[in-house]
Amino acid sequence: MLDETDRENRAGNVDPIHLPIGDGRLQQQIDFLIEIDKLKSIIRRSPLIDRSRFENSAEHSWHLSLAAVILTEYADDAQLDLFHTLKLLLVHDLIEIDAGDTYCYDEAGRKDQKQREAVAADRIFSLLPADQKRDIRDCWEEFENRQTPEARFAHAVDRLMPLLHNYFARGRIWQEHGIRRAQVEERMASIKPGSEYLHAVATAIIDASVRKGYLAE
Amino acid sequence: MLDETDRENRAGNVDPIHLPIGDGRLQQQIDFLIEIDKLKSIIRRSPLIDRSRFENSAEHSWHLSLAAVILTEYADDAQLDLFHTLKLLLVHDLIEIDAGDTYCYDEAGRKDQKQREAVAADRIFSLLPADQKRDIRDCWEEFENRQTPEARFAHAVDRLMPLLHNYFARGRIWQEHGIRRAQVEERMASIKPGSEYLHAVATAIIDASVRKGYLAE
Repeated sequence: MLDETDRENRAGNVDPIHLPIGDGRLQQQIDFLIEIDKLKSIIRRSPLIDRSRFENSAEHSWHLSLAAVILTEYADDAQLDLFHTLKLLLVHDLIEIDAGDTYCYDEAGRKDQKQREAVAADRIFSLLPADQKRDIRDCWEEFENRQTPEARFAHAVDRLMPLLHNYFARGRIWQEHGIRRAQVEERMASIKPGSEYLHAVATAIIDASVRKGYLAE
Repeated sequence: MLDETDRENRAGNVDPIHLPIGDGRLQQQIDFLIEIDKLKSIIRRSPLIDRSRFENSAEHSWHLSLAAVILTEYADDAQLDLFHTLKLLLVHDLIEIDAGDTYCYDEAGRKDQKQREAVAADRIFSLLPADQKRDIRDCWEEFENRQTPEARFAHAVDRLMPLLHNYFARGRIWQEHGIRRAQVEERMASIKPGSEYLHAVATAIIDASVRKGYLAE
C-alpha cells in the first residue's frame, strides 16, 4: 500500500498534528503515542504460533500483558501489584524502536546492548512531558533491574511466552541458530525469581522439546 | 517461512503441549494463551502511522493500553481505575478471532455483529478455567455496554487512536470507502462520555482533516 506520500512518511517527514487548542502537554503526549507506533515494525525472532510470520514487539507486549493477567496466581509474591506489572510490560520493549531487538542468544549484539538501549530511552521517553518521562523511564529501568516482585514476574512471563512459541514452531528457530538445551535452560533460569512454579513448567517444556527432537541436547 | 508442518499448524493441527505436571488448570490457561495468538492475524482497516501495512488487533490493543496510561488524566471520572481500564482494553478485541474485525462504517456487517461476537465469546473465553472465563467475559461485556467510567474511557481511547492513524494516513482509507465528515463525527461522539476534553480534541482533528482535504465535507 506504499505510494509517494507513504515514502515521505517512512522517511520521517510525517505531517505533524499541531493541535489547534494550544495544549503543549497533550501535544507531547500525542507525539509520543505516534512515535511508539514504530514498535509494530520491530521484528522479533519468535514466530507466531501458526508460523505465518515472525512476531513484532508491539503485539508481543500485548500478549505478555494478558499472560500476566491470566497467570498472576503463579507469581511467588502474593502481594504482587498486577497493575504495576502491566505498566512494566507495556513499556518494556519501547527502547527497541531505536536499539532494535537483540536476539537473546546473540552474544556480540548483547555486549553493547545496555549502552544502545540507554541512548534510546533518552530519546524516546523525552518526547513525553517531564513527569511522565520520569515515570515511564522508571518503569523501564525497574523492569531491567529485576529487583521488585513486579519486575521479576514480568520477566518470568517474558521468558515463558517465547518458549511456548518456539515449542509450537517445533524448535525451528533454535535449530536455525544452533541453540542447545543448556542455552535455553540458562535463559529460562530468570523465570525462577518470579515464579518457581512457572520455572518448573518451563523445565518440563524444555524436556519435552528435547524428547521430540525440537531442541538439541 | 511456511513449510509442510506450518500448513498443518495453520489448519489447526497444532501439536498441543500436554503439560507433564498433571495441572489441568494451567493447561487450560496455556491453551487460552496459545489460542489468542490468532488476534495477531486479525487485520484492521487502520494503517500503521508509516502506512507500511494495516495494523492488526493485537498490536492495536497494546497501543490503546499504553495510550490509556498516558492520557488517563483526561478521563472525566477522577476516580477512574486505570488497572481495570487496561484489563478491558487488553481483552476487548479477543472475540474478533472468530467474529472478525467489523469495519465501523460497514452497516451490513454491523447488523449481525452482536450475534457473531456473542458466539465467539462463548467459544474463546470457555477455554479458560471457569472463574477466569467469567472474569474475562465480564470485562468484555462491560467494555461493550459502556456503563462504567472505565468502559467509557476505554472506548474514548479506542476511538481516538484510529482517528490519529487516519489523519496521519492523510485520510486515504476514508477516501477509499467514501466516508464523510458526518460519519466520522458520529463515530467520535462516543469519546464524549469518557472524556469531554479528548472529544474536543477529536473534533479539532476532524476539522483539520477536512481543511487539509483528507476527509470529505
